[in-house]
This record gives sequence, structure tokens and C-alpha cells, in this order.
Amino acid sequence: MIVNMAANATEEQIQHVVDRIKECGFLPHLIQGAERTVIGVVGKNRGRRAEVEALRVAPGVDEILIISQPYTLVSLELQPQRTVVDVKGVKIGGPDLVVMAGPCSVESREQLMETARGVKAAGAHLLRGGAYKPRTSPYDFQGLGVEGLKILAEARKETGLPIVTEVMGVEDLDAVVEYADLMQVGARNMQNYPLLRRLATVPRPVLLKRGPSSTIKEWLLAAEYLLSGGNPNVILCERGIKTFDSELRNTLDLAGVALAKELCHLPVVVDPSHATGRRSLVPAAARAAVAIGADGIIVEVQPVSGESAVGWTAISRLAWLRRDDEWTSTGDRNGRCCAVRQRGCFKSRFSHER
Amino acid sequence: MIVNMAANATEEQIQHVVDRIKECGFLPHLIQGAERTVIGVVGKNRGRRAEVEALRVAPGVDEILIISQPYTLVSLELQPQRTVVDVKGVKIGGPDLVVMAGPCSVESREQLMETARGVKAAGAHLLRGGAYKPRTSPYDFQGLGVEGLKILAEARKETGLPIVTEVMGVEDLDAVVEYADLMQVGARNMQNYPLLRRLATVPRPVLLKRGPSSTIKEWLLAAEYLLSGGNPNVILCERGIKTFDSELRNTLDLAGVALAKELCHLPVVVDPSHATGRRSLVPAAARAAVAIGADGIIVEVQPVSGESAVGWTAISRLAWLRRDDEWTSTGDRNGRCCAVRQRGCFKSRFSHER
Amino acid sequence: MIVNMAANATEEQIQHVVDRIKECGFLPHLIQGAERTVIGVVGKNRGRRAEVEALRVAPGVDEILIISQPYTLVSLELQPQRTVVDVKGVKIGGPDLVVMAGPCSVESREQLMETARGVKAAGAHLLRGGAYKPRTSPYDFQGLGVEGLKILAEARKETGLPIVTEVMGVEDLDAVVEYADLMQVGARNMQNYPLLRRLATVPRPVLLKRGPSSTIKEWLLAAEYLLSGGNPNVILCERGIKTFDSELRNTLDLAGVALAKELCHLPVVVDPSHATGRRSLVPAAARAAVAIGADGIIVEVQPVSGESAVGWTAISRLAWLRRDDEWTSTGDRNGRCCAVRQRGCFKSRFSHER
Amino acid sequence: MIVNMAANATEEQIQHVVDRIKECGFLPHLIQGAERTVIGVVGKNRGRRAEVEALRVAPGVDEILIISQPYTLVSLELQPQRTVVDVKGVKIGGPDLVVMAGPCSVESREQLMETARGVKAAGAHLLRGGAYKPRTSPYDFQGLGVEGLKILAEARKETGLPIVTEVMGVEDLDAVVEYADLMQVGARNMQNYPLLRRLATVPRPVLLKRGPSSTIKEWLLAAEYLLSGGNPNVILCERGIKTFDSELRNTLDLAGVALAKELCHLPVVVDPSHATGRRSLVPAAARAAVAIGADGIIVEVQPVSGESAVGWTAISRLAWLRRDDEWTSTGDRNGRCCAVRQRGCFKSRFSHER
Repeated sequence: MIVNMAANATEEQIQHVVDRIKECGFLPHLIQGAERTVIGVVGKNRGRRAEVEALRVAPGVDEILIISQPYTLVSLELQPQRTVVDVKGVKIGGPDLVVMAGPCSVESREQLMETARGVKAAGAHLLRGGAYKPRTSPYDFQGLGVEGLKILAEARKETGLPIVTEVMGVEDLDAVVEYADLMQVGARNMQNYPLLRRLATVPRPVLLKRGPSSTIKEWLLAAEYLLSGGNPNVILCERGIKTFDSELRNTLDLAGVALAKELCHLPVVVDPSHATGRRSLVPAAARAAVAIGADGIIVEVQPVSGESAVGWTAISRLAWLRRDDEWTSTGDRNGRCCAVRQRGCFKSRFSHER
Repeated sequence: MIVNMAANATEEQIQHVVDRIKECGFLPHLIQGAERTVIGVVGKNRGRRAEVEALRVAPGVDEILIISQPYTLVSLELQPQRTVVDVKGVKIGGPDLVVMAGPCSVESREQLMETARGVKAAGAHLLRGGAYKPRTSPYDFQGLGVEGLKILAEARKETGLPIVTEVMGVEDLDAVVEYADLMQVGARNMQNYPLLRRLATVPRPVLLKRGPSSTIKEWLLAAEYLLSGGNPNVILCERGIKTFDSELRNTLDLAGVALAKELCHLPVVVDPSHATGRRSLVPAAARAAVAIGADGIIVEVQPVSGESAVGWTAISRLAWLRRDDEWTSTGDRNGRCCAVRQRGCFKSRFSHER
Repeated sequence: MIVNMAANATEEQIQHVVDRIKECGFLPHLIQGAERTVIGVVGKNRGRRAEVEALRVAPGVDEILIISQPYTLVSLELQPQRTVVDVKGVKIGGPDLVVMAGPCSVESREQLMETARGVKAAGAHLLRGGAYKPRTSPYDFQGLGVEGLKILAEARKETGLPIVTEVMGVEDLDAVVEYADLMQVGARNMQNYPLLRRLATVPRPVLLKRGPSSTIKEWLLAAEYLLSGGNPNVILCERGIKTFDSELRNTLDLAGVALAKELCHLPVVVDPSHATGRRSLVPAAARAAVAIGADGIIVEVQPVSGESAVGWTAISRLAWLRRDDEWTSTGDRNGRCCAVRQRGCFKSRFSHER
Repeated sequence: MIVNMAANATEEQIQHVVDRIKECGFLPHLIQGAERTVIGVVGKNRGRRAEVEALRVAPGVDEILIISQPYTLVSLELQPQRTVVDVKGVKIGGPDLVVMAGPCSVESREQLMETARGVKAAGAHLLRGGAYKPRTSPYDFQGLGVEGLKILAEARKETGLPIVTEVMGVEDLDAVVEYADLMQVGARNMQNYPLLRRLATVPRPVLLKRGPSSTIKEWLLAAEYLLSGGNPNVILCERGIKTFDSELRNTLDLAGVALAKELCHLPVVVDPSHATGRRSLVPAAARAAVAIGADGIIVEVQPVSGESAVGWTAISRLAWLRRDDEWTSTGDRNGRCCAVRQRGCFKSRFSHER
């Protein structure tokens, strides 16, 4: 930490800060600048660090700058080996790109089974689908609950695809653990610490969505809750952040994905569906996610049903996933690039469809 | 709702949308524009409204504009009578300004009792203090839990001040209900729907902090969860939003407070401490909150302790609250203004102290 | 400046940075931390400061933290005397609140003269009105140009109110200088440096609107352009920033006003009309601006014209300004507070009008 | 446009709006909803459209929704043929990816010539470099001006690379037109309308950077200024937007690039250097930009100089560009993908270098 004293701080104020730093078990280093005094705080004493930070309200203190990162267990600096999370045999964070696909929410047995077969045929590796749905309005459909989980389990049985589904609260946790292979924490729950603390103790990997207004640091600290609580199997998921631009549902922060991968050893996947909210941009956004280093994508798909409006959409999405099949089948980074080329072909096909 | 068809939408696509709207129980009104067709959707059929909204992915649809507000129970349009919440005899939302004061977190019996006496003497109406603390880092102090609640209860017994304290999750809810007079939902939990649903059923009023990236509409919808679940005693609390400007901890959205009061009948209070994170700005920000129509303020205070750095701060804060005492004692809108004048005096006093 | 070396920086990398700091005329202070080395950079050598900052891309460097504020001439720390700007006899930044009122743009002689008389009668101190209008779309009305300036001059002649009007570019500067008493720099031009450099040399005070995405620091640095170029008569104007919340036109950053006043000695005024974009919130927002310490407000008014829709609005706005008349007439800080009380009365009157 | 009347609007208020719409030359379509009346506004009458929009302040009006996009000349809907901009023989927006590289600012003849040779050898297609620099602080280096332009011209003469350089204001325009092949409008000038209007008339293509807080719509409208003024040769450039996350310099909005390409026919390039501000992320961000459909990238490069810190950086950047050489040499979309593969190889090489 660096304590930046005010230009007009008195000797007494500086001495007071120096004394407090020592009391807290750190070493103060004074730097007498031309305009002001700056005090470096050196040493490892995590427990009393907050006390030094509290000096920011002491008289004569202008601000306190935090230098070392507050997370340790997720840090790539401290653990240079990248984590590969195994979800029932599917490796996330390894050389292969992983595709998780399915509907936003489980609405009926028919809908889910049809979609599950479709994404399986299209080459996806995990089936996604929400049984418990966080909804901005209390009047919107809140999910089928346990019934939805049972439908997911049936789809897994038939297709062999592991299931990723959201757990919304501690009270549903046991039910979700029973059915899910990968526990999803929604964006609005990224800083639901009681939930994170409980998820740190369950024998399931966790997909931690980034909060819509969370910095990369806050995201990594949320993951630190899971690791420090005992669960090392954490996958980060970027799904768009909230910015001034409302022309798309969210702003997809792909450079944030690259930064997260530079700072921590956990796999990072991208959700282009929630990030853009615009069907026509999903394939390109997924492509870019792969190019910037994402370990996987999680994408919304809807069943092909002849007369329904959304079925039309689903066809193109499944077609796209079919391309992803070829793309992910080669099994190494070069393979991914070939796939990008394949999607080049796909792209033209997709274009005339629109 | 308004369905805005694409400029190149075909007759079939338009007819499809029209048919779907009818199937969902609404009346479609076609407007044939110079460049495109727009379809008004008329009628009340809340249940199938989501199905019409889902048409936004139908072929030929450009976007769907939601016209009527999705909240009803909190709406001032539908209930023109303003809600006054009674917290153990303290009326929030009525003619008097209400001041809630206390430390960020309960750290010890001594700290809290001293602060409680101070804020009582200074004229505050409620005692705030966190027993359960949401922390960005798992390594920070997480609160004293039930022990902290008991200390709060002791302070209430001595001072007579009702207690507002945060409930972080469903699992702590019973403990907090036992001790708290006003249940605080933290900013990071504003969209924790399982928690909101449970709080809708407890016999306690709720202080609902605005999420750091929540729009006014999302905030009102979170309150709608509480009202629709059976708890009409909800107080909104603005505590700053996340924006590009990081020079202060958050951006205090006072116009948002005015807008919330224009749209809904619930009382709105302001937390200038979390909103600015800068001691020197808290008094002015509180003053502005009152001027724009806030029904109360909730502010961090720290005990006066001779040798400690933060004690210095606390003195001025308590002094400020003492001014608030005069200011809130008059009991009407004119009274508030007198108080602003008093604080004018205070301000000059405060200035030379810094 | 503080150079924060990476945890794995080598001795050579550290030595290289130390050498470069010396070459640039500064003194390096090494702090050997538990995890990493931090180097304090001490000394005054403004010219080569950018070279040290460029070290942020040097190998082994993690980041460079800027400690001392980059502005000096606007700094309250360096010049503790507050600036009072005199606009043709109207003092801005002194004890009296200043009200600038008028239409968004000058549309016709009739419209402006009527408005000018209205705001004069209502007690405003300056007449605002745009002759050159920055418009997001090239198809919108771009202002009357010199003809508009002449109409403004006529209104000044009749009412005696000094004129504040926008200068959009260097090429219009001579024309605007000829007519305006206070040169307004629009939000989109806050970082138009050629314009700022030219305005630094004209014999007119400048009203510098804050850019919609400018931090307080960037705003103060834009003012520093004016002061360092020779023009000390600068008034800052907050008019709302761009955030994720689009329910109002902008987010009014009143705590930013308080911060600006804490950091610099220039007067700060607030534009509640552009900040909120919602007529019904303007009075309350103006009130809050005064409460937080703004030196004035600049507000949009439209003429009272019997049959026109906007005339209805204008009546209430003028009525409001009439209150401001009483409010500003007392001439000291206590006076302002009385005015707030007056507006308390006004408020109830205004309420039943809506 | 859609006029959304308030739920409690009176018959007279509705009639007033209807009458005004007719007066302005449009056709009103009333939709009588369950809760409120909505009025569709139909017809093409651009000139008086602003008058209808002004009804948003009329009594009884809740809001006015703009449906049709305000831009026309840049719209892909209205001109389905994509624009290819020719900069001295380099085609931007066609099948080949275009790389523009060079230093942030021209600092000396030696620096620029060395960089120019480097980027030429590395396969770049245009040389970038700033002679006029917009600087947040007046104390920072403001560029060499005309001298810098002359150095750029010399580099062009030797290497044959066309030059892209920034024009900061109308007063420098003639000088820049004389030397530049592509006129860059900086992010802070995106809404400098006098500058745009002048650039609309010069015989040079324009690179229009997106403002740090501009929506896609505002960006396209800025381009519309250029096209409507007579200059069809416009290239858009995304360079990161301002959001709450300050861990990187800006937030790179790649989905915004995809959206811009979906809405308009102009080429779009990406500046990963300014967008991320972090050397290590630039290659991956550039890769993602290509994957999402960018027509080119513009990247900062620094000269290779044995002993200097930044030289080290430059080597890797030039090496990266060398890969880009192979990548851009194939001349079709498949070619780009091969290049992505090549950069896959590069990436591992780059990794061990860091």
C-alpha cells in the first residue's frame, strides 16, 4: 500500500500515520517529495491490513493506493499452472474449445428434449437450461424448479451431455447439486457471498458469471471466495457489462476476458447470447471470443419447430453449432483456427439466410 | 407494447406477428408508416405478455418497445397516496426527515454502545450497524453475526433507538428478524430474488438499497417483489451507482431519487456515506438529498475516541448530526429548510475544522 | 509518481527503471516489499515527466501510479482564494446565487425577446440562448448563427441582462466574442483543445461545460488549458454525465460539483435542464444543486405563448424563477437558505399545477 | 415516432397532440390501450419532425419514442452495397484486412523513419503517426505540428506507405490535407461538428474514431455529417469506450463493431492499442477484432532501439506485424483465417518473450 499524504499535511499527521502503520505490523517507508510526502507500507500482515486502509480517513491523508492484488489463490502469478476443470469428462480450460448450448429456461419436457437432441447432434459438449430463473419482474415466469431439474436429468440420460444449470439461492442448493454437473451462479448473484460460501463446499464445479457492473478484480475476488472455501473447480463466464450504450443488451467485454486470463489461472468462457441480446451478432461474437482466448462459449438455442417464429432462429443457431462441431473436433489451438476458417464458410451461408 | 417491424419485413412476417398477438389475447393495431409498419399491442393479459415480447426474435421484427411500466403495486400512478412506513414509532415518508446513523459494522460492544449514545444525543432516529457484512474479498472482516445483533439489541434497549441492520441471505433471516426493526437489503442483494421473496413474508419493514448498476425501473421492480409478496412496508435507499468516474467511490444519483419519488409512492432515503466515500462531502451531499426530496438519510458515524484517527472524523460527524437534531425537530417542510440554514452555520464551523 | 514493478521483475529490469528515472531528472526511492519492489519518483521536472510515465511499457513494470494532481493553476490547494468571475457586473462565485435562463436555442426575434423579458421579470441575472447549436444529427436545426447573436444583443440592450451563448469552433469565435458576455463551451467541446487555446486569449470569461464522460480531473485539466493560456475567468458547469441509466437524459453528478469545489477555486454552476431532460425534475434538481454548494444555475425557459404546448411549461418555469428572485436577493449564504424555504412554498404551488 | 400519452391524459390534451401532429404534416394514428392512449406518427416530413419531438414537453405527454433511425446515407438498409474506401491504392472495406501502424506521435525524424521502415518491412499498409496531439493536460507534449507532417511525408516518400494522421481543428485542416492521405478525427472530436462539416468538403477520406462515450447511433450520425456534406469516403474506428471498469484504459466494444457493420455500409477498423492500453493484450484484441468482422486494425508501434525499454516492446510488436504480413497477403476471408492460425504460432512465441 502507498499512503499519499496531503500537500499540507503536518509533521504530526505524518508521524501519526507512521506510528499506526508500525502498530499494525508493517514497515513504513517515507518518500519526501517536492510537493508532498508519500509513505510506502511494506510487509505481509493480512489480518491488520484493513486497519491500515482505514487510515484513509485520518487527518492529513489524501488517499491510499492498493498495490498488491487482494486475491491470491486464483492468481496466475502465484500458481502459474492453468486450471482445467473436468465436468463429467468434459475438460474446460484445456486445448479443446467447449460449447455449452441449450434454451434460456426449461419450459417443457418437449421443448428441452428436442433442444437437447439438437445440440447433441450439433456437437455441443454440455447442455444448458434454467430451472430456477432470476427475473427482474415478479410477474415473469420464474422457472419450473425441481420439475425442470428432472427434465434436464432425463435429457442428460438420453444424450449423455452433462448439465449446467443455475442455482439461485442457498435454499435450492441441495436440489440443484443433486441434478447438475456444473453449478451456474448468475450475474446478479456474483456477489451473493452466502451462496458462494456454500458453493465452496459442494462437490461440483461452479460456473461463475461476471456481475453486470463488476470489475475484473471484483470477479476474481468472487472466485477467490470459492477457492478459499475449498472448491478449486471454478470457471469464469463473461456475459456482458452494463454501460451507457443501450443499443445492445449489454457490452461484451472481450478484452476483459483476455485480462482475466492474464491475471488468473481459471478457465474463462463467454456467453454471447446474453452479452449481445441480438441473434444476428451471436455467431460473430462467439468467433471473437474464441480468437481472444476464451476456453468455451455458452449459447442460447431454441428448438426447431416448423410453425413457430423462434424455430427459424434456432435452425441457424444449430447450423452454426454444427460448424462448431468441426471446429472443436481437432483438439488443439491450430484446430480452433481451422474452425474459424470453417465458420468463414458458415458465415456466408448464414448471411443469405438472414 | 409496440412491435416495430423491419423496413423490409414481408407481408407474411407482418401477418404472422398479427396472428401471434391475437393468439396471446391482445388486439393488434397496424400503423402503416412511410418506411415501415408498426403494430400497437393493446389489452391487459399479463400472463401472456412475455409471449408477445418473445416475438422480438421473430423474422421481420426489428424491436419491441415496452410502453406501460411493468410495476403496478409501487406505482404512484395507481396508488396516489404516499406510503409512510412506521418503524417502531418512527415515521418514514411523512413530514419529518428521518436520520439513521451508526457505524458501518458492529465491531465491539464498546464501539457500538459509544456510537449509539452519540447518535442518540445527536438526535438521530434510528441506529444503523452491520452484523453481517458483504465483503468483496473473502479475507476481510465478515461481521460478528448473531453476537453483533445482540449488541445492537442492547444499544436499542439503552437508547430506545430502533435498529436497522442488513440481512445477507435467507439462512440468516430468522436471526435478523428476531433483532432488527428495519431489515436492510444491501446493494449487491437488490436482485437476490429468493431473499426478496422471503422478506415479503416477514413482519418487518424493509430498507431496499439500490443496486450499484440498477436502473430506477429495476429498483422499483425489486420493490414490487416485496409488495406483491405481501410486505407493503418498503423504503428505498439510494447509495450511489457505478459510473466511469472513479474519483469518488460511487456517483450519487440524486435526480434518480426525485424520479423514484415521482414514479412510486414509497419513501426514499439517501446514504451519502457509501455514495461518496469521502468524509468531507457527506454533509453537503446529505443537504442536497434533503433539498431534492429525500425522506431521510442514513449515514456512517464513528465513535469519538481521543487517540484514534477515525475519532477525529466522528466528532465532526456527530456535530453535524447535532445540527440535524435542530433541523429535524420542526416537523414540516419549512422546518427542513430552517435546518438547511442551520447547517449553513454548521458548514462554516466545519470548514475551519478541516 | 510510483512505479509498481511486477512481482517477477528482475534486478536488471529494476535497475533499468532506476537509471531512466535519474536520466529524466528525478530521484528514485526504492521500497523493497514482501512481494514486489515499488519505486517512488521524487522531484519537479515537468518537462520530462512524460518520459517517466512512458516507462509503463518497460519490461518488468506493472503499472505507474500518478500521485500529485496534474493541474496547478486551478487548484484550491495552491490558490486558496476562491475566484469570483465578473460578467458585466454580475459576480459569479461570490455570496449570491446567479441564475442564467433562456431558451435552448434562439429561434426567432419574437421568441427570444419574449423570453428575455420574462426571465428579466422573473429575476434572472443572465440571458442564455444558443445561436450556434451542436446537433447529433446533421438534419436538425443548427442555429441562426450571427443573426441569432444579433437578436441576443438586442435583448441585452432592452433588458440589461448579460448574454451567455455557445461558441462551437474557432471559426465562429470572433463573431461570438463580439456579442457574448460569457462564452459557453459545450459539453462535446470540453476537450476541443484548439478552441480552448483560443478562448484562453480572448477578453471574455468562459463557461466550461463538463463533458458527458469526463472525470472531474479531466474537467479541471480542460480549465487548466484556459488558465495556463492566460484567461483566469472560468466558470465550470455540470450538466450531467453518461451512465448506464437512460431513464433520464443524463445522470446529474452533484457530488462531483462538491468535489470540484473542494479541489479547485473556480465557481461551479449546474444545468438541471440538460442534466435531467425532464421538466418536472428541474426545480428539485436546481434546489439540490444550491444545497450542495453550486454558485449558480443555468436553466432552459420557453416563452409563454397562449396556444402552444411548450408555453404551458414556460409559465411554471418562469414562476419558479420568480421565486429565485426572492431567493437570490438576500445576498449571503443564509439568504440562500431562506430562498430554499421560499421554494418550499413554491414547491407546493408548483405541485398542484402539474 | 410514437407519442406515449400519460395514463391520466385528458381528452383535450390528446386532441392537442393530434392537432399539432397534423399541423406538422404528419398523420396521427390513435391506439386506445387499456391503460393509456398511444399515438403513432406517420409520414415523411423531415423538416418539421423536430416540432413533433418537441411535443414531449406538452401536457399529458409521457414520452416520445423515435422509431425510424435518424441516419439515412450511412444506412446499410438504404444502401446495401458496402463502401470500399481507397487510400492511395489501399482498399479498406474490401476482402483484404488492412493494417495501419506507427507511433502514437511523431517525436523526431529518426524515431519516425525507423518505425516507418519497420512497419513497412512488417507488412503494414498505412503509416500512422500524430503531428497534432490532443492532450488531457496542457503541460503534455502537443505534437510537432507542420514539422511532424513533413517528417511523415518524408517517410511516405521512402516507404511508399500512405499516411494517416489526426486533424485536431479547422485551423490546422489545410496543413493536414496537404500532407495526409487519410484524415483522422480523434475520439474527443467525434462530435466537433464544425470540423466534420469542413472535412465533408475536402478531397481526402476520413477515419472517424468513435467518441469514448458515444453510442453506435451517435457515431453513425457523426458519419452522416460527413456523407451528407459530400464526403462518402469514411472509415469508422472503434477505440474503446468509457465504462465503470478502469482496469484497462478503455472497454473495447467489439460487439459494437459488429453492430455498426450490420447497420451501416462503411468500413470499420479497430484500434486495440488505445482500447486496451496494455501491450500484452493488443495481439489478442486485434485477433478478436478480425474475427468479429473488422476491416482493419490501427496499432501503435515503437522503434526497435537496442538499449531502450520501449524498444523491447517494439520488437514484439513488429514481429507480430510480420505475422500480419502473411496473414494479410492472401487477399480473401479465408486468408485472414490462415493468418489467425499464423498468429496462433506467433502467440506461443510471444508468450515466452514476456
